[in-house]
This record gives sequence, structure tokens and C-alpha cells, in this order.
Amino acid sequence: MKKKKKVNAAILIIGNEILSGRTQDKNIAFLSNWLNVNCGISVLEVRIIPDVEKTIIKNIRLLSKQFDYVFTTGGIGPTHDDITAESIAKAFGIKYGYHKEAFKILESYYGKEKFNDGRKKMAKMPTTAKLIYNPSSAAPGFITKNVFSLPGVPSILNSMIENCKKYLVKGLKVHSKTINLFTVESNISNQLDTIQKKYKKFVEIGSYPFFRLGKIGVSVVTRSTSKSKLTRVKKDLMRVIKYKKIKILKI
Amino acid sequence: MKKKKKVNAAILIIGNEILSGRTQDKNIAFLSNWLNVNCGISVLEVRIIPDVEKTIIKNIRLLSKQFDYVFTTGGIGPTHDDITAESIAKAFGIKYGYHKEAFKILESYYGKEKFNDGRKKMAKMPTTAKLIYNPSSAAPGFITKNVFSLPGVPSILNSMIENCKKYLVKGLKVHSKTINLFTVESNISNQLDTIQKKYKKFVEIGSYPFFRLGKIGVSVVTRSTSKSKLTRVKKDLMRVIKYKKIKILKI
Repeated sequence: MKKKKKVNAAILIIGNEILSGRTQDKNIAFLSNWLNVNCGISVLEVRIIPDVEKTIIKNIRLLSKQFDYVFTTGGIGPTHDDITAESIAKAFGIKYGYHKEAFKILESYYGKEKFNDGRKKMAKMPTTAKLIYNPSSAAPGFITKNVFSLPGVPSILNSMIENCKKYLVKGLKVHSKTINLFTVESNISNQLDTIQKKYKKFVEIGSYPFFRLGKIGVSVVTRSTSKSKLTRVKKDLMRVIKYKKIKILKI
Repeated sequence: MKKKKKVNAAILIIGNEILSGRTQDKNIAFLSNWLNVNCGISVLEVRIIPDVEKTIIKNIRLLSKQFDYVFTTGGIGPTHDDITAESIAKAFGIKYGYHKEAFKILESYYGKEKFNDGRKKMAKMPTTAKLIYNPSSAAPGFITKNVFSLPGVPSILNSMIENCKKYLVKGLKVHSKTINLFTVESNISNQLDTIQKKYKKFVEIGSYPFFRLGKIGVSVVTRSTSKSKLTRVKKDLMRVIKYKKIKILKI
């Protein structure tokens, strides 16, 4: 497939356990990083919302219009609080019911005898969805229009993500270089500002304080789809670092 | 101050480093948990957005209307990519400039000689804002209308959070009980559904698979502002557990 210059996505985390602070989310960083490195897709917005049908419907409609892709996590299991599949069907006005292929996969995984109501529920989704196969626990994710629905358990999500690849239009990968410096942000803020303005359209420069080995430092992160532009920015940064006599921790 | 029954909040994480997956967010779980335990405030939505002025302005306007409180993290440091303060001033049509008290705090912290442009920038904010004092690195957060702006570095944010308390109207705390079971979700999904329907208005029941000691389990989490309702739900759950002969890992 031909590469588009910029392809973007939003992530929609569905689940009271993340919102309440009970569970530390691990899917956002994983998904965002995977999408960029493997598909050149930039995540431009993340939302975390509760297991409430009308909230899910509203967000699915809005984000699926606004972004090239939407990735949802959570709410596709067998219990009463798993309402992602039905909500997405409603958001798009697609019939919700047993997905023939998903039903077969789950029936053969559990065996007819142990294929109880809870397990059958995991075969219910927008009936026209494409499946995202699940190598670790069978219950598939699904694709409805431009919305990819994955489970909330990180290890299962991670095992399924490669199966999304073939359905995604790839964009240009954003490369990144980081220089870790033993200095404080205010010591280099003017210079970073000047360099950022010079490369405004091509490179995004971020600066993030860190604490390591009892010392304060700054990570200067540069990001661009052009490797050569990154190299030029690095040269400019090195000039500032040398002039200011700043110690480099790691490049 | 009289307790409102339900007080809610949204969290707005501002920062390319979180969106890109480079940095694992730690503020969402901390803030959400702190707000519930200490103030009885429930976080109902989280958004993560890039350091882009118009995106910040749009989200601040929308969330501040929709929720009792908004907590922003990130983008209040000394560098070019720290644009939260100016964006919030623009969102509300308030003058952006040196905040007199913040300027004094920072000048006395750094000393006149070392109070350079980068550091001075941290005294710039909506000029009418209330300050959130920062015991660890001086640069204050600020409150603009119902929007509380905190830094992105978790250790600094954590050190400042108690200073938000006096400005918040408290709500009823949501209590929670968790039972960890050695079973699978589909084994108890029907029963959970029945119990959830029985206590629909008062208790929220969530079910979350886990993997521990090589075994699969389910955490059943019940949440309610009423402790007595939680006790009643627990009794119903214990009846199911006993009937199904499920081993309990931890209550």
C-alpha cells in the first residue's frame, strides 16, 4: 500500500478501573509506541472513559470522524460491565449479535460443553465486523469501520497487536533522538526556543526534567519524520551544549 | 463546607511525551485516587493531548464547562514547549503575564542574579490566578476558575497536591471492596449480572481478570458511597462463591 505522509489515531480506554486509579494503565504507552514504530501512525489524542453506554457511543462517533483510526481497549469480556461491543454497534447503527466466525472460534476453543453464556457473549459484536485474532486466549478483537477494539488486559492486547497491522494504512515513521544533559531547563530554554523556531515545520523539540543518581537533568527529545533534519538539529544542540559547558549523561 | 452528594472532575494530561508513548504516565492513577480518597471527587474523564495551543484551549473550555473541576498536568515549566499557562489564559480571556506573588516566590528562591528568563517564565500565568504552592521546587501551580494546573513531573505534583485541598468542595467518598477469586469471568458472569441489576443504583460492580502465581483469577471490585450497601453486596457475592465452590485468594 502507498504510504500516506501523515496517518493519525486516537486511543479510547474504556474502563472504570483505570478512571478510578485502581489500575495503572499500561496500554497507552504500548499502543502509541507500537503504532509509531511499526506503522508510522501518530496518536494525537487519548481519552479514558467509564463503562457507560452513552459515553462510549458519543466518543466513538466523535473520534472515528476526527481521526484516521481509533483504538479502543477494554470492555470486551464476558461480564455485565463489558459493553464496548454493543455500544460500538449502536454508535454505527450496525446489528449487534453473534458473529459467525467468532462463535466458531470460541466454540472450538472451549468445546461445546463448556461454551456457556458468558463465553458466548464474547462472540457477540457488530455482526459485520472484521476479526482481530487472539493467539493467547481465543476471544477475538474486532474492527468496525475505522475502530479497532482490543481487550484491556495488557498481555493479551500485546499478543494480538500484530494482527492489526494488515488492516492499517502506513504513514511515515516519526524518528526520535534524545540527549540527556546534566543541567536545568532554564539554563537552555532560550537556546531551545531559537532552535525550535528555526526548524519549526520539520522537527518537534521537547524538554523533560529528570532526577537520576541524585542529580537533576534534562532530556531533550527531538522528533521528526526526516532523519537528516534530526541530524542538523543535533548539531545545533551540540554547539549550545559545548558553549554552555554542559555535561552529557547519554546521547 | 457542606458536602455535595456527587462532585466530579476531569484530568487533562498535556504533553507530547505521554502521547508518543515515550513516557509512562503516573499522574492519572495518583490524581484520581487522591481525589476520591481525600475529597470524595470522582474522575469521570481523562484526556491526553499534545502541546498544541488550539487543542489545549478547546479542551479547557469544554471540560471546564462539563465538569466541576479540571486538573491539568504538564506544560508549566520554563521551556518553549511549556504553553499550558498561556493557553489557559487565552481559553478564558484572562490577561497572561507576570503573576506578582509567583514572581516574588521565584525571585527569592533563585536569588536575583540567577533569576533568568527561563525561570521568570514560570511566573507567567493568568494574572488573576490563585497559586498552588510548590514545596519541592518553588515554581507554583495555579487555579484559573475551576481549572487546577499542576506540573508533569510526578514527584513534584505529588508534593503539591495537598495544597489543592482547601480550594475543593468535597463530595461523598466512594468506598470499594475487592474479592480476588481463583476462577474465570465466564463462570460467574450470570451471577454478577443478577447482583449488579439488584443494586443497580447504589453499587457499581466491576470484574477484572488477573494472572498470579501461574493461575488465572478474577478481581471482583464493588464500589459505592454507601458502606452498608457494599456489605450487602458482599453477602450476595459470598453466597455465589460458596455455591460454586470457588477458592478465594484474598478479600
